Amino acid sequence: MYQADYLQRFTEDVFKSIGCPDDQAALAAEVLVSADLRGIDSHGIARLAGYVRLYDHGRLNPTPNIQVVHETPSTAVVDGDRGLGLVVAPKAMQIAIEKAEKVGSGWISVRNSNHFGIAGYHAMMALEKDMIGWTMTNAAPLVTPTFSLDKMLGTNPLAVAVPTQDEPAFVADFASTAVAYGKFEILQRKGLPAPLGWAQDANGEPTTDSNAVKSGGGLLPLGSDREHGSHKGYGLGAIVDILSGVLSGANYGPWVPPFATAGFMAVQERVGQGTGHFLGAMRVDGFRPADEFKSHMDNWIRAFRKARAVEGKQVLIPGDPERETEALRRQEGIDLLPPVVQSLSELAQRFGLEFEVQ
Amino acid sequence: MYQADYLQRFTEDVFKSIGCPDDQAALAAEVLVSADLRGIDSHGIARLAGYVRLYDHGRLNPTPNIQVVHETPSTAVVDGDRGLGLVVAPKAMQIAIEKAEKVGSGWISVRNSNHFGIAGYHAMMALEKDMIGWTMTNAAPLVTPTFSLDKMLGTNPLAVAVPTQDEPAFVADFASTAVAYGKFEILQRKGLPAPLGWAQDANGEPTTDSNAVKSGGGLLPLGSDREHGSHKGYGLGAIVDILSGVLSGANYGPWVPPFATAGFMAVQERVGQGTGHFLGAMRVDGFRPADEFKSHMDNWIRAFRKARAVEGKQVLIPGDPERETEALRRQEGIDLLPPVVQSLSELAQRFGLEFEVQ
Repeated sequence: MYQADYLQRFTEDVFKSIGCPDDQAALAAEVLVSADLRGIDSHGIARLAGYVRLYDHGRLNPTPNIQVVHETPSTAVVDGDRGLGLVVAPKAMQIAIEKAEKVGSGWISVRNSNHFGIAGYHAMMALEKDMIGWTMTNAAPLVTPTFSLDKMLGTNPLAVAVPTQDEPAFVADFASTAVAYGKFEILQRKGLPAPLGWAQDANGEPTTDSNAVKSGGGLLPLGSDREHGSHKGYGLGAIVDILSGVLSGANYGPWVPPFATAGFMAVQERVGQGTGHFLGAMRVDGFRPADEFKSHMDNWIRAFRKARAVEGKQVLIPGDPERETEALRRQEGIDLLPPVVQSLSELAQRFGLEFEVQ
Repeated sequence: MYQADYLQRFTEDVFKSIGCPDDQAALAAEVLVSADLRGIDSHGIARLAGYVRLYDHGRLNPTPNIQVVHETPSTAVVDGDRGLGLVVAPKAMQIAIEKAEKVGSGWISVRNSNHFGIAGYHAMMALEKDMIGWTMTNAAPLVTPTFSLDKMLGTNPLAVAVPTQDEPAFVADFASTAVAYGKFEILQRKGLPAPLGWAQDANGEPTTDSNAVKSGGGLLPLGSDREHGSHKGYGLGAIVDILSGVLSGANYGPWVPPFATAGFMAVQERVGQGTGHFLGAMRVDGFRPADEFKSHMDNWIRAFRKARAVEGKQVLIPGDPERETEALRRQEGIDLLPPVVQSLSELAQRFGLEFEVQ
């Protein structure tokens, strides 16, 4: 088991080794390790080598000039200058928060960025200011819209964080697909089939093939098929894509560049710059007194927790599973899979750092 | 077949008959008939008698004082004073648009309202100003969150309308459930079962009983079951509920009053006032020049339309089906079901109006 602090320091050192300034390396490491702490292992330190690959292929600028290129009192476009999304997104959220402090809300569309880690991290930045935080991002096309054979959208997640009084915060953070791609990777490693409703094959037919996305198929939008509302999941993913990509001047739809997949590094970005995000902050007291709002949020949460549940289960509040995992992993540490440990050892060797193989 | 103009005039006369001022009666009629034109028959003139029932039971104020009760430059809470949601929501959207004109975006949470018709109508008000429009509303509890036996949320829809250059606008407008309740009503009338994944029974088991929601069951969130992401549909419905209800001071969750269902008229509103909505407008040129954005939206739409599709189908853009239905129905008229014609005839008789039974 690795302690979060240990992984944080190592990750920081790797980012410094590719030329990131100290403060940006620390921030990027914090965002990345927060994914491991919260149990979203696919978006954590397992991807560190991927960010280094982006750097190796000239797609990552370690010393970006992140700046507002267009703005009104409550809106802006931020250019990430090909910096780490892990750094660009928190900077953009900071600008959203400052705008909200002045005029009630702030909405930032970001271009020229790349993978920003877990959406929830950035949305949760708003909580301590008694603001509601929003985060979205587009991503490389893996998803087939309803009736489509072509992959046109990414898993395009949405996160909304809402402050509370005594209860833990409400933090919804989810992809606009039936499942995230990471679930297929787990099944592939185990040689297991996938449930119907997660993917389609190259002919647009339902499939249990957990390799379907690699062989001409696609991930299905939330809702899985037309009869169960896949056009709604497609609509949600499209909204995320438009706000993140079209509004900012980033790439969108089928043109969003892949994160760092081997073989896809020399991508043609034809319609914009890099990956796009959309972040927002709304001051709760721009609507009603913050204490009043937060005590009603506590009441909301308690009512849902008290709902009668099917046997052996309980009704969860969005954010519950991640928060419980974080509490556990801060105590007991984070277990890394052998291939992840291997990739971190290779990074250590390359940059002359130490990494303890457990 | 009834012409839209004819239904508009009749609906206007009914609203005037219960005391609505001329301009509000006209606006409410336009919103209601736009649902019939766009093919969302469940939210159109079929509900006119329901609004009158709200009035009969003292839950509808025909001459509301709709006003801002709290605001910042980009946010506000509007109190609907128990007015028609069909009137309160467009007034709130107008305020959102005015704020967006001044500071880039405007976000309005509404309390003390009731059913506002189709969400898409209000979101589309932003289009002619080159703004992106948002609409959400909470609704009476019919939906069981993941693992819940209790109905805790409404079908809580979300609409986002995005302006374009030469292509028709992008208009996503969907409930956060697998299907809207209207689909069950159609099956009930025909005595047909429902597909699995639409509802659960009183024990939380999957069911094909199209009467399940009436006998202790519930509608399922988008995603249908945990394995297919129902916690995401639940999360989306929860976000809509919090922004509409908790943020405004309306009722929320299980406390949202029913529209006008017989037997549920004397509702205990325990946590706020009436039904809540959330509306927003963002100036496109608060982010990038409007012409640039709109021509990229055209490009987005054309790329998705050109995607290869499964045989006999095509990839649709959100808003396509409704727009096509509207074009047809403006030409050919609107076909009303016999029970709807009957309810309109009864209203005509009660208020001394004419309604031609076809």
